Amino acid sequence: MTELTRRNLLGMIGTVAGSTAMYYAMTSMGHAQPSSYKGPIKLDGDPKGAKVLILGAGLAGMTAALEMRAAGYEVEILEYREKAGGRCWTLRGGDTYTELGGATQNVDFEEGNYINPGPWRIPHHHYALLDYCRRLKVPLEVFVQKNFNAYVHNEDSFDGKPQRLRDIEIDYRGHTSELLAKAVDQGKLDEMVSEDDREMLLESLRELGVLNGKYEYTKSLEVSDYRGYEKPPGGGMNAAPVASTPIDLDKIVQSRLWEYLSTNYLQEHQNTMFQPVGGMDAIAKGFEREVGDLITYNAKVTSLQQDDNGVTVQWEDARGGGETRTSTADWCVCTIPFSVLNQIDHNLSGGLATAIGTMFYNSSVKWGLEFKRRFWEQDENIYGGISYTDQAIAQISYPSYGYQSDGPAVLLGGYTWRGSNSYKFNAMSPDERIEWALKMGEKIHPQYREEFKTGVTVSWHKVPWTLGCSGVWEGREGYDEAVKIDNRVVCAGEHLSYLPAWQEGAILSSLDAISRLHDKVING
Amino acid sequence: MTELTRRNLLGMIGTVAGSTAMYYAMTSMGHAQPSSYKGPIKLDGDPKGAKVLILGAGLAGMTAALEMRAAGYEVEILEYREKAGGRCWTLRGGDTYTELGGATQNVDFEEGNYINPGPWRIPHHHYALLDYCRRLKVPLEVFVQKNFNAYVHNEDSFDGKPQRLRDIEIDYRGHTSELLAKAVDQGKLDEMVSEDDREMLLESLRELGVLNGKYEYTKSLEVSDYRGYEKPPGGGMNAAPVASTPIDLDKIVQSRLWEYLSTNYLQEHQNTMFQPVGGMDAIAKGFEREVGDLITYNAKVTSLQQDDNGVTVQWEDARGGGETRTSTADWCVCTIPFSVLNQIDHNLSGGLATAIGTMFYNSSVKWGLEFKRRFWEQDENIYGGISYTDQAIAQISYPSYGYQSDGPAVLLGGYTWRGSNSYKFNAMSPDERIEWALKMGEKIHPQYREEFKTGVTVSWHKVPWTLGCSGVWEGREGYDEAVKIDNRVVCAGEHLSYLPAWQEGAILSSLDAISRLHDKVING
Repeated sequence: MTELTRRNLLGMIGTVAGSTAMYYAMTSMGHAQPSSYKGPIKLDGDPKGAKVLILGAGLAGMTAALEMRAAGYEVEILEYREKAGGRCWTLRGGDTYTELGGATQNVDFEEGNYINPGPWRIPHHHYALLDYCRRLKVPLEVFVQKNFNAYVHNEDSFDGKPQRLRDIEIDYRGHTSELLAKAVDQGKLDEMVSEDDREMLLESLRELGVLNGKYEYTKSLEVSDYRGYEKPPGGGMNAAPVASTPIDLDKIVQSRLWEYLSTNYLQEHQNTMFQPVGGMDAIAKGFEREVGDLITYNAKVTSLQQDDNGVTVQWEDARGGGETRTSTADWCVCTIPFSVLNQIDHNLSGGLATAIGTMFYNSSVKWGLEFKRRFWEQDENIYGGISYTDQAIAQISYPSYGYQSDGPAVLLGGYTWRGSNSYKFNAMSPDERIEWALKMGEKIHPQYREEFKTGVTVSWHKVPWTLGCSGVWEGREGYDEAVKIDNRVVCAGEHLSYLPAWQEGAILSSLDAISRLHDKVING
Repeated sequence: MTELTRRNLLGMIGTVAGSTAMYYAMTSMGHAQPSSYKGPIKLDGDPKGAKVLILGAGLAGMTAALEMRAAGYEVEILEYREKAGGRCWTLRGGDTYTELGGATQNVDFEEGNYINPGPWRIPHHHYALLDYCRRLKVPLEVFVQKNFNAYVHNEDSFDGKPQRLRDIEIDYRGHTSELLAKAVDQGKLDEMVSEDDREMLLESLRELGVLNGKYEYTKSLEVSDYRGYEKPPGGGMNAAPVASTPIDLDKIVQSRLWEYLSTNYLQEHQNTMFQPVGGMDAIAKGFEREVGDLITYNAKVTSLQQDDNGVTVQWEDARGGGETRTSTADWCVCTIPFSVLNQIDHNLSGGLATAIGTMFYNSSVKWGLEFKRRFWEQDENIYGGISYTDQAIAQISYPSYGYQSDGPAVLLGGYTWRGSNSYKFNAMSPDERIEWALKMGEKIHPQYREEFKTGVTVSWHKVPWTLGCSGVWEGREGYDEAVKIDNRVVCAGEHLSYLPAWQEGAILSSLDAISRLHDKVING
């Protein structure tokens, strides 16, 4: 424990417990919604020198290590990779990545540029993760999810021309408000809308839909305040604005571009979202500062066996060579993804073993593409946020940092998950994947080819240490059994949460698992 | 010209002209909407040593100075204050501010905390301002305008309890989608919706309103993905989420809280918005780095006279004492607010003189309140963004910087404009104003009193060097005459634009004014 000593930790628990108390006071006033994160956990009672072996130094593993050492355990962590973080991972210039099958990519980004192949954004209500960022002093900055000036694009709509999200969203809202207002005004909804609510509903529709006195959504300066102008207001002479013309509802509805509006209203995508300054692995490094001294890196676990006396793990150097080594402990927190754990010799049992043997892992593919300049900002006034397309790359996300800077910048050139698109990309070589990302991306940004500099792509089914992006529960059958402590071993990670693929899920899973394990250690 | 030499400037014009060319190419593809800013202006032709006197070192004045010196003019700037920026102004610990009437406030904020009493946010489509930020190397960060987790509050609604913006917005959307979908499904809108569009419209309403198979907006896990859960998804055991219950449409409509939803959809409030890192005056300082050597500070203009031979300005030391000084020039760009210019002896004529004599200035009051800790983040998970209330303070905006940091932080404790509320606050002493901001704010945040540390408040009608917040045109009558060059003087500023109160308006007005003036100088 380098910076965050046990004493500090306990001090902080006090501080945060204070605000947690306040938080619950707020809740009772109807102010805040409850969270399943109740503030830093307290593992009361003396484990009397019990040793816990933690497999995997991702966020679940390091959370367990940090909290269990603070509670008095002897802790050892085995990590397959040469560094901590797991999927909390950032690629920068100088990094090398070899995927399953042997293809190696040497990342050639400029200094300061990066891509997060795994998690890349933090919702405002992922309380546990945010609290660890606070405790670990990980500086955060805003991640721009929704950008009204970004594009929505379907190949068969609007002659394949990308549309500004603003136009589709504002016009859809206006037209549907018009329809509803007219229906209400004409008495067609009298069965559903009370006399008392009628006028107020009409007033709200007029305001929110920006309708005129006849409940029409139509070309006007007022509407242009929302959808933008044909000629924007200026200064000095000839500065009067000219109104723009809304797109017909018919065209919007038929374009299916409205399908891209919904995602920004998911709670997990709602303003305010965050990203760690400089890359997601700032969180990994924050944990590593605390528990790095407990981690054995490059440790490839080959066997996990337990009996009534303890846990025995065999491992070898992941870089090859060297003999098999053995670590033993009283207890084990195993955060190895089931996709990988399934290939390790183990004697876990019951519902846990069943889940390990059957869990399917999401595929997901991401691209980091570096361009010579920020053409999306300089030419198109898009600062951060996401453009969506029905092409296989699904989306392009612009960097939420370094705004307006000169020189090369990296955007997320695609992010697919599940489904056939991911499988197709997974089957390709990295070069082919990048070529396809350019081919598709240039339909949205014609500058792509001219400005492209270099790229890197990660297909999660080919990541040797996870063999997939995140664990999938179809219907949650067997979940309750899988999360149980199996004698001396408890498993944890995003795959054992209801927040799959999110770092919050990994942490909450870990906190729950170690709380139960600790209870068993103390109370039997 | 310290960093941005003329040579550099021209070089940059080339660079940016390239991207401007690209920008217009984009426009023709339907990609970008036209801007009244066409990229850095080119003032071709040799002014042959003509001298221009610029009154006021706000953004309009400094824009004029920067561009006209680059074009070959001899430039002199007179500024009333001890520093540049005008309303582009930031208050920090150690600053002192004396308002009209003599009340002095000594700002006692902690290091790093600040409030922008004037402009505080930059829309993504304020191209001119953003381009100057880029050229002047002013780093920007995201300003959070919309925060789904912030509050909307009316004293007479929901027993005066603040509601999360999320609940009101998502539920309003859901309920109105249900009403419209049912009306369409029941054939009540067949006159307005074509057969072809019907099914697709229903599908879109189902998706965007999160309706069930019967077109109902009702309690469900799916709806909770948008409005939040009663019990959020967790990790490990007992982690399954529990759905929350939507608020009835009746209650939402009658609460009038929907009135606060619209503002976030104005183009000028749409994601992505910016603020300069460290305070808005980073822009003033950026300009000052370039043209500071041209500025005479503490110069209170008392007379502006012109004849066919030139312009003569008399001024004295604003700090008092000292004799009257005289500056002369061939031409003058006057950016003094009309509210102040009207009190200066001048011989301007025609429509310009009429506008100077009659222009009304907005009132506006702002508060910067420093609290011992970020309780809005720690207790209520509100990171940046704005809460709205029907109380006179109108809004509370949380800082879009220093997220999760310990120690005191400053929020915007109120922001009123026009109307009787501003006048009431204007009539108060600063201490009274702050007391009222606390009294009102604590209805939203009960932590206010316990956590309050110190505050500062600026009522713009009492700001000695503007006597108001921004110039108001009622109906724009006389505008076209007021922006004309009056012999050797042209006026510029936000008050002579269609973007009043915005820095973009000041810059666009200035660029237009100096372009016309330059044309007159060169071509007569």
